[in-house]
Amino acid sequence: MAPEQSWTLDDVRWDERGLAPAIVQDAQTGLVLMLAYVDRESLARSLSSGETWFWSRSRQQYWHKGETSGNVQRLISAHLDCDGDTILFRVDPAGPACHTGAVSCFFRAIDPSQEAE
Amino acid sequence: MAPEQSWTLDDVRWDERGLAPAIVQDAQTGLVLMLAYVDRESLARSLSSGETWFWSRSRQQYWHKGETSGNVQRLISAHLDCDGDTILFRVDPAGPACHTGAVSCFFRAIDPSQEAE
Repeated sequence: MAPEQSWTLDDVRWDERGLAPAIVQDAQTGLVLMLAYVDRESLARSLSSGETWFWSRSRQQYWHKGETSGNVQRLISAHLDCDGDTILFRVDPAGPACHTGAVSCFFRAIDPSQEAE
Repeated sequence: MAPEQSWTLDDVRWDERGLAPAIVQDAQTGLVLMLAYVDRESLARSLSSGETWFWSRSRQQYWHKGETSGNVQRLISAHLDCDGDTILFRVDPAGPACHTGAVSCFFRAIDPSQEAE
């Protein structure tokens, strides 16, 4: 494998809303916890604070994950994908990622009876 | 933890383009390989064929991952997130996910010197 390359905020290709999806993965277990969106400011805050920040599309405001619940996500690493439009945060979560209390937001598996649709 | 719930195609909340982001993770290693987009048809094809299909936003056409490279991704499971707008595919990949030849598209780590921006 080639040596790992690096990126800066200027390398991100934002969508027409000025956002990029950020996948959040537990760095320890490998479990994919959630997907949320960052703009340049929330990504910069994540990197400078060492905890995840997002842009909430529904509330149209900055969202420091865990600010009310206490379930902050300490940032271990941040990767950018090959075409620069998606972020991968590896984190150490202080608690469940999901507002339902589930460890991961991806707790629903496809119903096998629907697979042939 | 609550027993795992299930979902069907009707549970997906598509965005204004009729798309949803799909995270692709190696089911064996836990490595996050890529993120691409599915519409209802490509999601249905993924589930019925057992290999990942996406909607290519740049080419505006269906994209059977690995069709030309041979690096198909055999679908192990498909999860929907709590608010229904993101898919997680766990796969068994026949080869590298990235068009660059990298195992994962997330091969660029943030430049630490930029973190304080």
